[in-house]
Amino acid sequence: MTSLDELPLRDDLRGLSPYGAPQEQVRVSINVNENPYPVPEEVATHVIQQIALALPGLNRYPDREFTVLREKLAKYLGHGITADQVWAANGSNEVLQQLLQVFAGPGRTVMGFTPTYSMYPLLTQGVGSTYIAAERDGDFEISPDTARNAVAEHKPDVLILCSPNNPTGTALSLETIQAAYEASEGIVIVDEAYGEFRPDGMPSALELLPGRPRLIISRTMSKAFAYAGARLGYFAADPVITDAVRLVRLPYHLSAITQAAACGALDYSEVMLSQVDLIRGQRDRLVEEIAALGYRVYPSASNFVLFGGVSDQAAMFEEFYRRSILIRDVGIPGCLRVTAGTEEETTLFLEALAEITRERPELQAQEAVR
Amino acid sequence: MTSLDELPLRDDLRGLSPYGAPQEQVRVSINVNENPYPVPEEVATHVIQQIALALPGLNRYPDREFTVLREKLAKYLGHGITADQVWAANGSNEVLQQLLQVFAGPGRTVMGFTPTYSMYPLLTQGVGSTYIAAERDGDFEISPDTARNAVAEHKPDVLILCSPNNPTGTALSLETIQAAYEASEGIVIVDEAYGEFRPDGMPSALELLPGRPRLIISRTMSKAFAYAGARLGYFAADPVITDAVRLVRLPYHLSAITQAAACGALDYSEVMLSQVDLIRGQRDRLVEEIAALGYRVYPSASNFVLFGGVSDQAAMFEEFYRRSILIRDVGIPGCLRVTAGTEEETTLFLEALAEITRERPELQAQEAVR
Repeated sequence: MTSLDELPLRDDLRGLSPYGAPQEQVRVSINVNENPYPVPEEVATHVIQQIALALPGLNRYPDREFTVLREKLAKYLGHGITADQVWAANGSNEVLQQLLQVFAGPGRTVMGFTPTYSMYPLLTQGVGSTYIAAERDGDFEISPDTARNAVAEHKPDVLILCSPNNPTGTALSLETIQAAYEASEGIVIVDEAYGEFRPDGMPSALELLPGRPRLIISRTMSKAFAYAGARLGYFAADPVITDAVRLVRLPYHLSAITQAAACGALDYSEVMLSQVDLIRGQRDRLVEEIAALGYRVYPSASNFVLFGGVSDQAAMFEEFYRRSILIRDVGIPGCLRVTAGTEEETTLFLEALAEITRERPELQAQEAVR
Repeated sequence: MTSLDELPLRDDLRGLSPYGAPQEQVRVSINVNENPYPVPEEVATHVIQQIALALPGLNRYPDREFTVLREKLAKYLGHGITADQVWAANGSNEVLQQLLQVFAGPGRTVMGFTPTYSMYPLLTQGVGSTYIAAERDGDFEISPDTARNAVAEHKPDVLILCSPNNPTGTALSLETIQAAYEASEGIVIVDEAYGEFRPDGMPSALELLPGRPRLIISRTMSKAFAYAGARLGYFAADPVITDAVRLVRLPYHLSAITQAAACGALDYSEVMLSQVDLIRGQRDRLVEEIAALGYRVYPSASNFVLFGGVSDQAAMFEEFYRRSILIRDVGIPGCLRVTAGTEEETTLFLEALAEITRERPELQAQEAVR
């Protein structure tokens, strides 16, 4: 048996483990911020029809420019965005990877505000760049001044702002994004993977696009569109950014089937998004009822909630796991993250949390109870 | 309008153009080595059923380990290969990119024998490595000595051997691959994208896998499987190589739909591959009839043919294009590449070549006529 150590691996990969949350059969999977609702039947029927139309022609390469898909994504985004401002790839991880290949790479820096999406440092390392972990204000917020000062201090080639932020749920104000952009001479990516779960009245960073050619708003169909299995991430930006990404994208990176599946879902975007309100309702319920049990809950504009006030988050994670409920230990001391599921899944989680709190009171940090 | 020059692009990308052959509506598209036959109806029906089963569950992330697909690919490859030796990605370009991310990267070198697949230098640049273009023997062959000496001289971290080679059609002997492997301390990738078109009795490099943990054989479903639009590349190697790739692959890089589509086609691999013999027949016909018209034809183990003896390949390309026939100028002086199409497409190409040769005899290099 050859071992990894015996292979001529890149030095900086030695000793690492692959990224990935556990994929296990449990009663309630609320660990990876998936949408709990299956693709509605009428949409599935339409998507299958679209894929069936593409199937016989699969002997040919797909449209490298995925023109129809870009048009449908632009129409969905609104804000006057046109197809030449839109780009897509197999999941927003690939979108981000392509952007880092163009604008970061060896000798350059990428900055995020910790804690944030744990793929950012990995994607950064993957393109040979250095990751800078900037600090947030209290309660995981980022004020315009904090953003401005961190950018001025570190001068990152690429800044990634996740809003709403994974894993904290924190949304950034447009003022903060604007301050970061103005302080920067590099690329500013606002990752709005969870953008559709924003509370009513909270604006998207899409509003800031006009006149800001270094600003990129990335999105995904994984969450609000209930399409995590279809792998479709995208961004909107100045058309010149899509030209830049064309220099590094692998030719024909989006299969004809993926294009058809995404187009089919976008044809029914209202139906696909119809569950978003239900999910936001369960999110608000989580915020309220977890707090009522005496835990510290952070405000969330997303489809998940981070709560603190846990004395031993690994032990509490295990208590849920024992009950066949999978939540997420995101590595923040005293905190755990839980996805808003269906009403039933959320109920099962809340009942389990109440039970754990009752049966093992020592898992609740006493100083955090309020 | 912002221009690319005004963006903070990576320096080595400045002035480059995106990779990609023209995607145009013409009468005969024989420029990108596609399989000319649509996916057979019985296979399409089965694939659609498989995708339909996956559709409702697309709200969940796909199986990150694509276990069923790896089992089916291993079974298809034979040679005693097991699922833990197999890996797949969205097209063999992504397979190669992942391998270069692990085994090349900044400060390392990747070597190929020129002329070869033009994506190798681009993929190399994409991961920050340096590409070394080694030389072939006459007629684009590579003897065991030539391979051994080039490896000994340049000591590449990764060697990519394309066999049959794109764009020349040249197949490498197992002795040459073995000599390269033994001379190397790095990774040796044999790209068998066109492997299924080998003449009867010519072995695959899969035979060399046992006991060679640094050897990787990459394949694709694009060509022989008539599945270019589905984007499914894969490799077979020692299981430790798949562990290495897991360190850099984006999580969930293969969508549930792609997995279902590939599995469905593999269930019908005999039907999918039933056209390979027809294509090999047209390939052999091209070799014979192009030579009969007085051009230099290189031996091909692939689904395309490279021919030389053209005085001005750009002008001849245009003559074909004028006739709505798209072939490929691969940048080798005096040469053009043509894909084996259906019998009708091949006839149209050969009739056009005869006509061009008659009407514009100056496009045939006089010294090459034999």
